[in-house]
Parts: sequence; C-alpha cells; structure tokens
Amino acid sequence: MNENEVKASALELVERSTIAMVGTVDEDGAPRIVAMIVAEHDGMKTIWFSTNTSSEHVGQLERDPRACVYFAQWAQEPWRGLTLGGRMEILRDRASRERLWEDGCERYYPEGVDDPDYTVLRFTADWAKFYQYGTKMRFEIEQTE
Amino acid sequence: MNENEVKASALELVERSTIAMVGTVDEDGAPRIVAMIVAEHDGMKTIWFSTNTSSEHVGQLERDPRACVYFAQWAQEPWRGLTLGGRMEILRDRASRERLWEDGCERYYPEGVDDPDYTVLRFTADWAKFYQYGTKMRFEIEQTE
Repeated sequence: MNENEVKASALELVERSTIAMVGTVDEDGAPRIVAMIVAEHDGMKTIWFSTNTSSEHVGQLERDPRACVYFAQWAQEPWRGLTLGGRMEILRDRASRERLWEDGCERYYPEGVDDPDYTVLRFTADWAKFYQYGTKMRFEIEQTE
Repeated sequence: MNENEVKASALELVERSTIAMVGTVDEDGAPRIVAMIVAEHDGMKTIWFSTNTSSEHVGQLERDPRACVYFAQWAQEPWRGLTLGGRMEILRDRASRERLWEDGCERYYPEGVDDPDYTVLRFTADWAKFYQYGTKMRFEIEQTE
C-alpha cells in the first residue's frame, strides 16, 4: 500500500467505527484505556465524544490532555488498526453540548443538555499509525485529513 | 450483576479474546495503544504476548513497565469491556521463548526461537475494571483469578 492507499483505508476505518478505544494517563502517569462511542468526526483530525463528567478519564484528561484514540476492524479480515495521537479538550460551552445532544440522551443525563454530568470531549490528532498485515505506516495528520 | 457474576463474565471475555489492546506510555509519558495477539493467559492474572523486539512498545516498556490490557466483545451485544492494570515484563530467557513458540513463527522470525527480533512479554494484573451496560465494577486481581 502506498501512502494515499493507507490514508484512504485509515479514513474508511474511522468512518465505519462506532466505538474507539481512548488512551489516557492516570494521576501517577500510568496508562489507561477506555472504550467510548464516537459521536462525530471530521476526517481523522477531530473526533468528538460525550461522556460522564464523573468518569475517571475526565479527571485524567483535566490533569493531562494527552490522549490517543485507537480504531480497529474486529470482526472481519483483514485486521486493520489505527492509532491517532494528540490532545483531548473538555468542552463545557453550550454550543458543543448542543452539538452532540440527541433525543434519548435524557436517559443518561436526566437534567438535559445542561446536566452537570454531561461532558463533551473533542480530540485533535497530530499523527497517525496505521497497521495492516504487511503494512505499518506513520503519517502526520493535516487539517484537511 | 454481583461481584461473582462480574468476575465470571470478565474471565469468559478474556478466554474468548484472541486480540487485546495494550496501553503503554511513550518516552514523554504520553499514552499509546497497540493491538496484540494474546498468546496465552492464566486466568486474568497473567497474559502472555510475543512481539517484535524492534517494536516501539518494547522500548516504551523498557523505560516504563506500567501497562494496561483491554479486552472487548465487539461483534455481539451486549457490549462488554475489561481493563486490566499492572506491569509488563520483557522476558528474554530460553524457556519463555520456547513456551510461546509455535510452528509457523519462522514466518515472522526467520532465525527461529533465538531470533533477536522475537520478544516475549508477560503482563501481570493488579486490578480490573469491568464494564457492561448497567454495570461498572472495579476489583483486585488475586493470584487465583
């Protein structure tokens, strides 16, 4: 696979993924992984999540915003994996809260879009590593990708 | 689910998993995730992997052995996830190398069981966090689990 083919395959993997693994570091600097539902994405550059403010990883990201997001193709051959490295912002503004809010979210956040336990996370990727049998490639993520 | 049911479900998830996500920290202390084939496991306490000595995560584990291992049930409902937190040892002794060696490994390590690019990793878990819709539980991992 050449670089364009790798980038196309990586983007397609992000587009078909409903869940991603998010890597953070805890208060001692040890690695942590949590699975999160992908709420929205802008190519591979920006990935949006919503989560509980009370979750451990929100506190971890407040202390250290460095994060990675892992996408994988599980159920089918060929195995593909994509790690994105970058930073996660915790957004508390109304526009971001409304952006990800959907009917049914009341089930998790009974107070609605302003529920204090509702938190929006926006990940911005700087680099990517793509894996597929026979292919391993690292590339930088530009704004347009 | 009570604690025994959670532990049984978590163990069953490990037993059916062929791949796990391994979390490490890089030289700057930023989180990294890599997918690895599970070679062997002893309950939830010990998980064995083999990998390329030249892989980035081997260097990361030499600097900082703290790791987490994430197992997930992807293709079917209900979603289940298990994070194990602990330490990864890099084993270079002959017995460990032979333990995980299988016919066909020559494809990846042409020099055989002593190939310098063949590395055995043994993860030992201290604690676990299990997630399933409606259930979230943390527990310590004893030697027998």
